[in-house]
Amino acid sequence: MPTAIRIIGIDPGLRRTGWGVIELAGNLLTFVAAGSVTSDADDDLARRLVSLHVGLTDIMGRFAPAEAAVEQTFVNRDASATLKLGQARGIAMLVPAQAGLKVAEYAPNAVKKAVVGAGHAEKDQIRMMVKVLLPRATFDSHDAADALAIAITHAHHRGSLVSRIAAATT
Amino acid sequence: MPTAIRIIGIDPGLRRTGWGVIELAGNLLTFVAAGSVTSDADDDLARRLVSLHVGLTDIMGRFAPAEAAVEQTFVNRDASATLKLGQARGIAMLVPAQAGLKVAEYAPNAVKKAVVGAGHAEKDQIRMMVKVLLPRATFDSHDAADALAIAITHAHHRGSLVSRIAAATT
Repeated sequence: MPTAIRIIGIDPGLRRTGWGVIELAGNLLTFVAAGSVTSDADDDLARRLVSLHVGLTDIMGRFAPAEAAVEQTFVNRDASATLKLGQARGIAMLVPAQAGLKVAEYAPNAVKKAVVGAGHAEKDQIRMMVKVLLPRATFDSHDAADALAIAITHAHHRGSLVSRIAAATT
Repeated sequence: MPTAIRIIGIDPGLRRTGWGVIELAGNLLTFVAAGSVTSDADDDLARRLVSLHVGLTDIMGRFAPAEAAVEQTFVNRDASATLKLGQARGIAMLVPAQAGLKVAEYAPNAVKKAVVGAGHAEKDQIRMMVKVLLPRATFDSHDAADALAIAITHAHHRGSLVSRIAAATT
């Protein structure tokens, strides 16, 4: 029985940040938990960032993942939306790093490729494949499902890296 | 002698975040300290954000400001630069809020207007006026000077707000 590695995926957003925790043992993926951390749109920005920080820090404490991954999201709508997302993403990257974890980043296309097998999948296809890959998964939001997809992506890249290293050293 | 209010201004940036602390007593502004917190470009993003968080948290502890202000910066260059700035700005907003402070935000034009008196001042004019308004100020970088300008802006808006409230209630 290989050692299980616990991975957290985070899908950052100011209003709602999704998180998903899985375990990887050999090639086997297992669902651990998923959910989302929200901030109150009536609060001022700084307090909203504190809410996300407190929420994610609590999740890190409860599930103690060993590795973390965050999506490299872009918003092309406008600079203001991108700045807002960046601020939430800053917190999403900070919290696991404060716990001493390295935080991997994956582009949306890499997530689609790892989960669906194609770089141009629809959002719904991603969610369906998350349910196929993690049959016991339950999630309260699209953001939590996306966070699980990011965790799965990290498991794939991490796995292929390990195989490549193993192949190179044997 | 009116009570002095200590204000921190922060000019966020991923490579270098400027900070400046001033005191406001009545209409009198006094320089307290200014400097900048940097992150190593060779580190990965999450570790860089931790560096900024640690550095700013240390400044908050050393100078214990009662109010904070951050510039509402925009980068129109590209979405990637805006996202990067947003991440650093998330940390700049988070740290004073974690210390229980309300964090005010000012648009660049408001900073120019408060410090130079015109909404379209050059960067050099702002620095010159910071030296005029705070003769004892020393700063290690443009970012620290800009942070002092943001603190001055907050002192002005805060002052005019207090006067307006006083005028309305007497």
